[in-house]
Amino acid sequence: MGAMGDTVAQAVIPAAAVIGVVFALFQWFLVSRIRVSGGSDENNRCDDKLMEEEAEEGVDGPAVVAKCAEIQNAISIGATSFLFTQYKYLGIFMVIFGAIIFLFLGSVKSFSTESEPCTYTKDKFCKPALANAVFSTVAFLLGALTSILSGFLGMKIATFANARTTLEARKGVGKAFVTAFRSGAVMGFLLAANGLLVLYISINIFRRYYGDDWEGLYESITGYGLGGSSVALFGRVGGGIYTKAADVGADLVGKVERNIPEDDPRNPAVIADNVGDNVGDIAGMGSDLFGSYAESSCAALFVASISSFGINHDFLAMSYPLIISSMGIVVCLITTLFATNFFEIKSVKEIEPSLKRQILISTILMTVGIATVSIVALPANFTLFNFGSEKSVKNWHLFFCVSIGLWTGLVIGYTTEYYTSNAYSPVQDVADSCRTGAATNVIFGLALGYKSVIIPIFAIGVAIYVSFSLAAMYGIAMAALGMLSTISTGLAIDAYGPISDNAGGIAEMAGMSYKIRERTDALDAAGNTTAAIGKGFAIGSAALVSLALFGAFVSRTGIKTVDVLTPKVFIGLIVGAMLPYWFSAMTMKSVGSAALKMVEEVRRQFSTIPGLMDGRTKPDYATCVKISTDASLKEMIPPGTLVMVTPLIAGTFFGVETLAGVLAGSLVSGVQVAISASNTGGAWDNAKKYIEAGASEHARSLGPKGSDPHKAAVIGDTIGDPLKDTSGPSINILIKLMAVESLVFAPFFATHGGLLFKWF
Amino acid sequence: MGAMGDTVAQAVIPAAAVIGVVFALFQWFLVSRIRVSGGSDENNRCDDKLMEEEAEEGVDGPAVVAKCAEIQNAISIGATSFLFTQYKYLGIFMVIFGAIIFLFLGSVKSFSTESEPCTYTKDKFCKPALANAVFSTVAFLLGALTSILSGFLGMKIATFANARTTLEARKGVGKAFVTAFRSGAVMGFLLAANGLLVLYISINIFRRYYGDDWEGLYESITGYGLGGSSVALFGRVGGGIYTKAADVGADLVGKVERNIPEDDPRNPAVIADNVGDNVGDIAGMGSDLFGSYAESSCAALFVASISSFGINHDFLAMSYPLIISSMGIVVCLITTLFATNFFEIKSVKEIEPSLKRQILISTILMTVGIATVSIVALPANFTLFNFGSEKSVKNWHLFFCVSIGLWTGLVIGYTTEYYTSNAYSPVQDVADSCRTGAATNVIFGLALGYKSVIIPIFAIGVAIYVSFSLAAMYGIAMAALGMLSTISTGLAIDAYGPISDNAGGIAEMAGMSYKIRERTDALDAAGNTTAAIGKGFAIGSAALVSLALFGAFVSRTGIKTVDVLTPKVFIGLIVGAMLPYWFSAMTMKSVGSAALKMVEEVRRQFSTIPGLMDGRTKPDYATCVKISTDASLKEMIPPGTLVMVTPLIAGTFFGVETLAGVLAGSLVSGVQVAISASNTGGAWDNAKKYIEAGASEHARSLGPKGSDPHKAAVIGDTIGDPLKDTSGPSINILIKLMAVESLVFAPFFATHGGLLFKWF
Repeated sequence: MGAMGDTVAQAVIPAAAVIGVVFALFQWFLVSRIRVSGGSDENNRCDDKLMEEEAEEGVDGPAVVAKCAEIQNAISIGATSFLFTQYKYLGIFMVIFGAIIFLFLGSVKSFSTESEPCTYTKDKFCKPALANAVFSTVAFLLGALTSILSGFLGMKIATFANARTTLEARKGVGKAFVTAFRSGAVMGFLLAANGLLVLYISINIFRRYYGDDWEGLYESITGYGLGGSSVALFGRVGGGIYTKAADVGADLVGKVERNIPEDDPRNPAVIADNVGDNVGDIAGMGSDLFGSYAESSCAALFVASISSFGINHDFLAMSYPLIISSMGIVVCLITTLFATNFFEIKSVKEIEPSLKRQILISTILMTVGIATVSIVALPANFTLFNFGSEKSVKNWHLFFCVSIGLWTGLVIGYTTEYYTSNAYSPVQDVADSCRTGAATNVIFGLALGYKSVIIPIFAIGVAIYVSFSLAAMYGIAMAALGMLSTISTGLAIDAYGPISDNAGGIAEMAGMSYKIRERTDALDAAGNTTAAIGKGFAIGSAALVSLALFGAFVSRTGIKTVDVLTPKVFIGLIVGAMLPYWFSAMTMKSVGSAALKMVEEVRRQFSTIPGLMDGRTKPDYATCVKISTDASLKEMIPPGTLVMVTPLIAGTFFGVETLAGVLAGSLVSGVQVAISASNTGGAWDNAKKYIEAGASEHARSLGPKGSDPHKAAVIGDTIGDPLKDTSGPSINILIKLMAVESLVFAPFFATHGGLLFKWF
Repeated sequence: MGAMGDTVAQAVIPAAAVIGVVFALFQWFLVSRIRVSGGSDENNRCDDKLMEEEAEEGVDGPAVVAKCAEIQNAISIGATSFLFTQYKYLGIFMVIFGAIIFLFLGSVKSFSTESEPCTYTKDKFCKPALANAVFSTVAFLLGALTSILSGFLGMKIATFANARTTLEARKGVGKAFVTAFRSGAVMGFLLAANGLLVLYISINIFRRYYGDDWEGLYESITGYGLGGSSVALFGRVGGGIYTKAADVGADLVGKVERNIPEDDPRNPAVIADNVGDNVGDIAGMGSDLFGSYAESSCAALFVASISSFGINHDFLAMSYPLIISSMGIVVCLITTLFATNFFEIKSVKEIEPSLKRQILISTILMTVGIATVSIVALPANFTLFNFGSEKSVKNWHLFFCVSIGLWTGLVIGYTTEYYTSNAYSPVQDVADSCRTGAATNVIFGLALGYKSVIIPIFAIGVAIYVSFSLAAMYGIAMAALGMLSTISTGLAIDAYGPISDNAGGIAEMAGMSYKIRERTDALDAAGNTTAAIGKGFAIGSAALVSLALFGAFVSRTGIKTVDVLTPKVFIGLIVGAMLPYWFSAMTMKSVGSAALKMVEEVRRQFSTIPGLMDGRTKPDYATCVKISTDASLKEMIPPGTLVMVTPLIAGTFFGVETLAGVLAGSLVSGVQVAISASNTGGAWDNAKKYIEAGASEHARSLGPKGSDPHKAAVIGDTIGDPLKDTSGPSINILIKLMAVESLVFAPFFATHGGLLFKWF
């Protein structure tokens, strides 16, 4: 079915991508109908009666709309200006690193323009190494640009949506929920569709040059994953430092010393804090998940290209990973309707179940989708390469591989929820330990994080074993893609969190009534848990993706085994296992130092600006924004360099075996660090919220706000900030980025690597 | 030189052991000359004049001596009673686990009593598997008993020495230092000598049965390491929970809520706290280091037995590991004289340099010792097995292997000192971060711990690479033994810490003058750093030991490679990397829960016992002791079971490859967790002490005691307690115990293992 298959693939993938974009734009349109520019427009008018009923003593009236618009504008300007400054640095990085890729890969065959025998099918001639250098560089730049675009669009829609969510909260929690969720969906669908589309177009353009040399084509396309992930690294780290420096700084002076509420407009760091949510949690996370998605696609495509799909030139089967993603967009579209159209949120209690239902629905529907794609796109029997040997695989094997990845994501998500939601005993125990002060809170919180790795690791272990047994490294790559196949829904839920958080901040800053803030708080609390779930997905998929990339790297370099018992590999393993610690040390210290500076500035403003505490004078928000900006741009460079340079050093000086050890070590150690850091931080945050909300007898016995247990909980929450939003989620990127970088540079390492051992 | 070599080995080893024991007893005798039974004896009389000069308003007079004796007695009784209760549990464990060893190993050849072809020299006949079952069980029991004895003797001398150190502090800091150091030396030498002697005697007794079957002899002797380490596990975990439950509980109410000093006799948990120092930091650590020592000896002997030493029956060369240890005892003896006789401590500032000098002197002298032993005991050329292939080795290769281990220990020790002593900027930065509260203190402390793994990991990596390249797995085992060769000095320094800590506690409780407490505080502060150094050694050696045991295990099971790219190995690797987290979660939560109970009890006593706060009534110490005892005995079982059962499950159900993965994963991940936990805790402790001591302008700006930064520092210190004294140091044991257990059970796993994969 060669030609017809080709046509099917060529039709389905762009169609799905276009559907995704259109759906996202439609959601955006729906959100945009909520006006924030004063009370004179049609939309606000028609609901005037409704709002009047709810308005308390005029605090939520038209004047407030203007105030919201003003704050939203400030946040949007702050976020945009930070991102553009960051992009300048990223531009420099892209030029330098693009040049490195070109030079390293070009030097493999001394920049020769002559064709050479293919690596896997020796009787054919393939394009020269120089072509790989050129196209890898182009793919890298495309990936980096798409990643930047993903983060930027996410930030734009989030800052567009936050005040609208606040305003809708006046009409009820259901309306506000739908606004926040729709906005999250805009980001989710735009990102998934864009990622797919750019990859699809790149493959088609590269194909014009490469023709039948699919080996070279898909080898160079891996640069796309590298570009996506390296931007994600700087986005996550820079954004993470930005947001947490502001958050920690604002909390330490505001909540702890001055005893004013979170997001109080008197706090000079409050705008920086809200900007941070958008550049860190939204833009950073968008780049991160785009990176995972790009990498798992590239890993799967690369492994497939050197298997029978590639050798038989079966384009439909080759495109299996992309068709799975296309199916994912359609499935997520239907899933989204469940939240926005089929069900309506009527009370605060329904928010979290509704979000959780999204994950379950998308997983069930996607399982059917995977079965369909596996039957249609794959031949019933085919051959895969497995480190030199061949492996015979059936199409339903791959169905199991993709599905187990998908369901493992669900298991990880639900486990994360169990450990970070204050509806269950783990977080309640942590809250309870605040009775005896901050120290026990921290001890219990750390223990909770450590414990929360157990189930995800066993789940990942099973997924790896099953998918590898069925379809070797291709199976693992497809399991990773399976976990990410519902990325649009995952991102929608994930982005919903910071949008709600910001909405609450705006309500507080605009001085809206208690009722409104109660609603936005409820939205935010659910968002905290879903953010943790999102991080769980990101980490789980990162583990599978990096293993797949690792496998692709090993295949590409031609080493047959990575034997722990050889000292070359073992020292790689132990040093690799150390890297997440080194990296965390850097990022945490960065947040700590930046927060100290922020604290000093906020204290200075409180003590020198007269009338600040009683709200007569406005604080100097801009200085705090500047502190966060400067700190994050300066501090993102050392950890970024560590991650980018380690594979180059290990590969060039110690060779591919040591590098393989480094990758395996950082993977198995980093997963634990990342999961425990994210969950510890999430648990502390929700333990604090548990005490604040006082929804149960037990919770009330620990509160209210300002009580000693609450103060202890605030300390835990502050410690958790850099763990859950800076170092934890950046470690995903560390492990997968080192793997994809190794894969891209594999031809160079295989030819010139291991200098040190060659010298001695 | 067969027969003569035999004679040399047979003479040198017991001689060194006897010298060690005699030296220890002599030190004990010197310490015992300080009388604590009132002021009427000769020793106290002759110094009366001196003491009178120093006594302030009678507070340090003869009445105080009686008080000290009383407190010492209470601590000693508490510690002895706890250890005996613990030994009952250990007795049950030893019987059960001994039976498991016998049954598992006996079942390898269905309890047959017939001889069978040897594993490595197929043309010869070796003793039956049943003999291995019997002798492994015996060796296990011997190791367990020696470990118990090591811990118990350490506790005895420590509780014997603490009040004596306090009393000597009246005469000056130098005298007190010598007393504490001598007592530490008693423990160090007794332990090293006993460990060597029992191992030596066991080998000679086993040899009567095994005759020329050295393969079987040294295989069964590995049970000795298993026994030593499994007792160490329960000792460390149980003792760690005991001491930290009491410490955290005492601090949280006493220091934080009631604002009374540490070790104040009004605090009901104060005796439990001091007992804890002796059962956790002394007895637990003694068992731990004995375990490392026994295991590295066994690993080296086992590898040697299947190499040319064993095949040629060269007893002198076979005994090389034991002769290195013998040389170590002599070297440490000379080193000790530098602290006790050659130099005199005249001021507080000289304490820490003097202790650090001990490590340097012993390392330099030992390097010469290693060279001597390597020339005398080893043939110039010989052959080692290296996973099936043979490797030709020269005697100076082994000199390098042992020496690099020794010097790596020094590097790790000094790095640890840099990160945990308040003389350097890392701890000072942590102290400085207390300005903005507990949250930043915790963030900076965690970052410091993460950062402190970098140099040790690189050092261990270099040691592994060099020693493996020179002499394969035997080289690594010998590097581990090299690091432990100066164990007597290491232990002396290490035990010095808790003895000084207790001495300070007794001074406080006996109501001695400020001057005396200042001296004991100075001794204690130096002890904190050396304790961290000791932990660094323990972790470093554990890493090398477990790698050596891992290598021996792989050799024994006959697998040729441990390939990360096979899913069996990889899932083992990722699950193994998770185990330290699971284990830490258990132990930290145990400490947290026990501390909560302790806090409630201490609060109850303060609020219900009238006159407690003004010192008119005595608190009920016994209830607090009981809480710690019950908690530690109950809570040590789950983590202990996790460690003991994991290798059995992995090996039996998943087979040797998965188990190999588990061992490698837990090793590379556990080392990081252990180092960072120990150093973070040590840094927090010393940051607090830095603020309290107020020795610099900067330190004074953060103090005094009771200031906000100091309170933040106390919170950090409390969080660090379970990290540095419970979970951190237990993880060493986790990694090496799983490795030695796998080695002992290797014949069973090789024959019957991997049931699950056989079924499917």
